[in-house]
Amino acid sequence: MKQQLTVIKIGGNIIDNPTELTQFLSDFSKIEGAKVLVHGGGKSATKMAQSIGLTPKMVDGRRITDAPMLDIAVMIYAGQINKNVVAELQANNTNAIGFSGADGNLILSEKRNHPTIDYGFVGDVKKVNTALLQKIIGLEIAPVFCAITHDKNGQLLNTNADTIASELAIALSEVFEVTLNYCFEKAGVLTDVEDENSVIQQINSELYAKLKEEGAIHSGMIPKLDNCFNSLSKGVQKIKIGHHKMLKNADAIYTSIQL
Amino acid sequence: MKQQLTVIKIGGNIIDNPTELTQFLSDFSKIEGAKVLVHGGGKSATKMAQSIGLTPKMVDGRRITDAPMLDIAVMIYAGQINKNVVAELQANNTNAIGFSGADGNLILSEKRNHPTIDYGFVGDVKKVNTALLQKIIGLEIAPVFCAITHDKNGQLLNTNADTIASELAIALSEVFEVTLNYCFEKAGVLTDVEDENSVIQQINSELYAKLKEEGAIHSGMIPKLDNCFNSLSKGVQKIKIGHHKMLKNADAIYTSIQL
Repeated sequence: MKQQLTVIKIGGNIIDNPTELTQFLSDFSKIEGAKVLVHGGGKSATKMAQSIGLTPKMVDGRRITDAPMLDIAVMIYAGQINKNVVAELQANNTNAIGFSGADGNLILSEKRNHPTIDYGFVGDVKKVNTALLQKIIGLEIAPVFCAITHDKNGQLLNTNADTIASELAIALSEVFEVTLNYCFEKAGVLTDVEDENSVIQQINSELYAKLKEEGAIHSGMIPKLDNCFNSLSKGVQKIKIGHHKMLKNADAIYTSIQL
Repeated sequence: MKQQLTVIKIGGNIIDNPTELTQFLSDFSKIEGAKVLVHGGGKSATKMAQSIGLTPKMVDGRRITDAPMLDIAVMIYAGQINKNVVAELQANNTNAIGFSGADGNLILSEKRNHPTIDYGFVGDVKKVNTALLQKIIGLEIAPVFCAITHDKNGQLLNTNADTIASELAIALSEVFEVTLNYCFEKAGVLTDVEDENSVIQQINSELYAKLKEEGAIHSGMIPKLDNCFNSLSKGVQKIKIGHHKMLKNADAIYTSIQL
């Protein structure tokens, strides 16, 4: 039987709140067995860009990662956030190593090639170096990934953190039995975004199709759930979406995703 | 017999010059066997500090690392420089991983406790995690260290890159036969700083004492050479100081340090 492995993705809402982050990292440290953390960016990159006078570039309502914005993303995600998270995990006696996708060629991506929009330095994941990642986890290391990858031609690329978590979970499910946890500010997928009590506790592809059609699930939740169903179909064992307190409290409510 | 390992420290002059850096990283990739790179910071941290309106804090002519300066150092050294160096090494088919001392608890330090000067968030190295570092090198990984360490209480600390190179070389000499190379803008230790032809090709502790007394060796070169003699006395096999072209050209002139 395969060894269990927990992949956890935390978003900007935890990164931007030092008290929440400290609580989460303490909880993360208590999770037994092999584990991988993926963190998003939060607001510091935007703040830093503003403070040096950069304006985020938008095309058709989409944010474009131009060279100066990529530079800031690398500094903040791979530098400031990643290293402070690792240092705090070390203080919690979790032996973590922070990674971008360039490190160990762990996540190879390619610059997005969209027919009409030039997204700039945005990478779509091509390949996870599962063999090396498995060896690193075998050294009792908890890998901590930021949302920066590379193209193996010397170019770093900004990459969606949800996608990184999903691609890592898929790749690692070859060798581990993987549970993927998406932690965000809500208790789960809600039928009514205003009502924290409207958590859908179980969702499968049939119910997902129905709720999308009814408009109960919409906007940012759609790519998140598409990622989830994609991961499950490619071998990930279990997926949970909810507030990070679900990691600690056995009786917490969250959304469990099934095929 | 122990396996050979090459530790190379590069300074700001290479980091600040993209053409030199690209050449150096290509040369580094061609070095056979186990190798470790340590990089300094260059001018980008100062530039970034200026562009967000921070003034470097000085006390008695010494630069103090206050909290905002540490934050910038982490972003630039562990983020921007380290990840771009790693991505360029990957493009050269060298499987590198970038590290701060917090990653893998590889370099534990303590906040400098000086009787009269508060240096701020500056760390003096206490311990290298040789066992883990050896395992990582055993995975055919080239570790790339920036000059950031941690205290294992969650605090990142700014640390001198020459010292990091020296402490890594000393620790690794327990298990490898280590050559330590300090690359900088000169061809070696000069008796006349204006004359590139005045390279001292061999220096031992006796000659060092004499040249210090005569004033031929002074200022920044003294802590560098003190580091070297300390490293040799603690097990490092061989030390070279010179321009990075010494790594490639067998007939290049450099300074060789002996006890």
